[in-house]
Amino acid sequence: MKIVSHICKRIFKHTFMTKITVAKGDGIGPEIMDATLKVILAAGAQIDIEEIEVGEKVYLAGNTAGIAPEAWDIIRRNKVFLKAPITTPQGGGYKSLNVTTRKFLGLYANIRPCTSLHPYVQTKHPKMDVVIIRENEEDLYAGIEHQQTDEVVQCLKLISRPGCEKIVRYAFEYAKQYQRKKVTCFTKDNIMKQTDGLFHQVFDEIAKEYPEIENEHWIIDIGAAKLADTPEAFDVIVMPNLYGDVLSDVAAQIAGSVGLAGSANIGETCAMFEAIHGSAPRRAGQDMANPSGLLQGAILMLNHIGQSDVAEKVQNAWLTTMEEGIHTYDIYKEGVSKQKVGTAAFADAVIANLGKKPSYFQAVSYSADGALNLPKYVRKASATKELVGVDLFVHWNGYQADELAEKVQALNDPQASLSMITNRGIKVWPEGFEETFCTDHWRCRFKPTDGHSITKQNIVSLLQKAEELGIDVIKTENLYTFDGRQGYSLGQGQ
Amino acid sequence: MKIVSHICKRIFKHTFMTKITVAKGDGIGPEIMDATLKVILAAGAQIDIEEIEVGEKVYLAGNTAGIAPEAWDIIRRNKVFLKAPITTPQGGGYKSLNVTTRKFLGLYANIRPCTSLHPYVQTKHPKMDVVIIRENEEDLYAGIEHQQTDEVVQCLKLISRPGCEKIVRYAFEYAKQYQRKKVTCFTKDNIMKQTDGLFHQVFDEIAKEYPEIENEHWIIDIGAAKLADTPEAFDVIVMPNLYGDVLSDVAAQIAGSVGLAGSANIGETCAMFEAIHGSAPRRAGQDMANPSGLLQGAILMLNHIGQSDVAEKVQNAWLTTMEEGIHTYDIYKEGVSKQKVGTAAFADAVIANLGKKPSYFQAVSYSADGALNLPKYVRKASATKELVGVDLFVHWNGYQADELAEKVQALNDPQASLSMITNRGIKVWPEGFEETFCTDHWRCRFKPTDGHSITKQNIVSLLQKAEELGIDVIKTENLYTFDGRQGYSLGQGQ
Repeated sequence: MKIVSHICKRIFKHTFMTKITVAKGDGIGPEIMDATLKVILAAGAQIDIEEIEVGEKVYLAGNTAGIAPEAWDIIRRNKVFLKAPITTPQGGGYKSLNVTTRKFLGLYANIRPCTSLHPYVQTKHPKMDVVIIRENEEDLYAGIEHQQTDEVVQCLKLISRPGCEKIVRYAFEYAKQYQRKKVTCFTKDNIMKQTDGLFHQVFDEIAKEYPEIENEHWIIDIGAAKLADTPEAFDVIVMPNLYGDVLSDVAAQIAGSVGLAGSANIGETCAMFEAIHGSAPRRAGQDMANPSGLLQGAILMLNHIGQSDVAEKVQNAWLTTMEEGIHTYDIYKEGVSKQKVGTAAFADAVIANLGKKPSYFQAVSYSADGALNLPKYVRKASATKELVGVDLFVHWNGYQADELAEKVQALNDPQASLSMITNRGIKVWPEGFEETFCTDHWRCRFKPTDGHSITKQNIVSLLQKAEELGIDVIKTENLYTFDGRQGYSLGQGQ
Repeated sequence: MKIVSHICKRIFKHTFMTKITVAKGDGIGPEIMDATLKVILAAGAQIDIEEIEVGEKVYLAGNTAGIAPEAWDIIRRNKVFLKAPITTPQGGGYKSLNVTTRKFLGLYANIRPCTSLHPYVQTKHPKMDVVIIRENEEDLYAGIEHQQTDEVVQCLKLISRPGCEKIVRYAFEYAKQYQRKKVTCFTKDNIMKQTDGLFHQVFDEIAKEYPEIENEHWIIDIGAAKLADTPEAFDVIVMPNLYGDVLSDVAAQIAGSVGLAGSANIGETCAMFEAIHGSAPRRAGQDMANPSGLLQGAILMLNHIGQSDVAEKVQNAWLTTMEEGIHTYDIYKEGVSKQKVGTAAFADAVIANLGKKPSYFQAVSYSADGALNLPKYVRKASATKELVGVDLFVHWNGYQADELAEKVQALNDPQASLSMITNRGIKVWPEGFEETFCTDHWRCRFKPTDGHSITKQNIVSLLQKAEELGIDVIKTENLYTFDGRQGYSLGQGQ
């Protein structure tokens, strides 16, 4: 069946048009979108364009999401979305359309190829050719924040097994499809043993399924230092969301210019493609902007929808144009560049090169296989979960942990008793240090009293009693084991 | 009084010895410590050394913290600690002594100067002279992690007002003391509006007290890209813990070598000084290692204990030695270096240069004022805190948010009712999207029913009822306002 569908796709792909949603965006958006579409259509892209309006005008018309419900419907129906940069107005509770789109459509993978074009575009890293694959939905970007004491604010970092599996598998499938040799994983699992530990563990599990691809893990701090100094040491790098956000910008910048990079945001059903730069309102309407970033996004899109031959043709023509020294103002350099052109003239130069292959750079050759078809995530069987304690977080204005311990021990009952107090994770009771600085945010860990077990009912009773005794519990975290494995960290110094 | 004490310090500082704790560490530790101490003593450091044993031997003797209680007593008594790198054995629950020391002693500020020594040490960034000041105690490094569903693991990011005030004030005081012109702040407060928002807000507040020092804020991703590409754009940069961990390694690496950088860890009463590199066991005992990193740590220490004249003498002799091309193997380069030396010979070369000033590099001139004396943090008055809801986090294996909403709405009572469900921060009820990928970790937000207010007693009742109905609540987060200002984030898409 797969083979038949593959043959059908090969035969019919140029007779059936793929419907895509296009948003021309704000600032330089319309110019670079026109240039991009002109190039890919000239190269033979079989696309049927449905345009929507998103961004500044929609925001300023009072829609805080920057997108009308009808536009959502179109994006969801067409499933493939090519988006120019938009301007989010300052202040006033306007929400980033990018973040919203990624999250609502479940676009879990952000792919950003960062390749230097030395000697035609200035860079300190002539041999760089790195693809950053960033988890795009979870981590601290879940945006769940709470202030519950005068002094302390909290943000939840959430890392999930499906989130890890999906992004790590995507990275290996990407490497396979694009003949990449190595996938590197960056985490900080020496500190965050459970969250980043899970990401690293899933990486190791999935890497085993791809024995033909080299794999390695770096601690993020040392890995980031190596990437910034010697990017040629890496090939494909997969990372949790926050690290990926920071390091994909680092990688694009040191490759030469954020103006040359595009990115893909891939979900199980939908996908969005874009330039990584902003809408640059000061350059708008002057036919100056470099359309290369969005064009790179469009090439990722063409590969995604199975029009890899068109993608290949466009990329080779673009590389040829770059090495001919036909450059927009942002990368134009006396002595290296040959001709300074505007947005439209740059697009025409790329079109004139369609069918040519670069002579200095290596020509690209994309597999005819097109889109990566990843299996949908299937939920695993549940582990046996056992409640083994609870952390009660208390807002208290005192300074001496011993004094707090005395108060909180009044909650002890035959089943559960206070075993530890920490402040910002450091054990302060029993046997704390004078020098430990304490905030007003105390974590009081209750564990079963020897020989007993603890139930949800005990937690309710603890909270009830705390309320009666005026102990200000502001949050709880239950402690569990999963198939006997401990699901929580110890206190520092415990 | 301050002037008198200052004069006394100037007169007597060379007659009174400062007692310091020294740990020679593991691997190359003893060699580079001997070299470092020889140099600073030759330069006239008035120190009385008390040596302790920490590290590998102590770990392997069964002490999982790598330090004996008596050694803690000495560190706490002397308050100034010069530490060579140590080896933490792999596996077996051994805890990082560095992390433990920083946290227990409340060493809230990590200071890492990163200066390139072009053309004597190879770097792509010849004009770099950046000091990274990293918050050292809180953020995700509180290490508070919980797994409470099959699929999702959580780590708490804690940011506190005292933590922010202390580190930001330290950065500005440091800039003032060392005649730095600008302090830059990096956060991701466009996403983490409350936690990183607090850091940014405190930065803005404290910057106002230092009108003579320029200040600016960058979003961490763009800031990191700029730092990696154009570090000469920055002077002093202050950051929360995780960002500082990653970017201080990036900065040290791109300056030329992590082997040349030292760092200070400063608390209200104690301080620890070290090289930033590891114990390099493979190089141990060969008289090869570069002692420069630890020597830079010792220079930070001499400034800290008020022996700035000695610090200045050592630093100028070291710079002179570097530009004479007397280099250890790690930075030796044919055509640039003049003489390849071992650890001891390098120390002797620096000693021979004591009293000289560098000719190519600018000689340093440290203020005679020595240690930064920052005020202790004083707790602010409490705000009026009002309970306005609660987030109940539910472990549920289903997929349809509407189905969960129906179950959870059974908890509604006259005071509180379900207002929203999110999954990894994205609103999935009411009016969710099919495409949103859902894990088994659901946040159910209860808000007061119209016209009512909510109390702790309502939360206890909700939990009691959830337990009776078999709804698996695994954690809670109370929602508060502080002086009327909302202390929690909305759901994405809310």
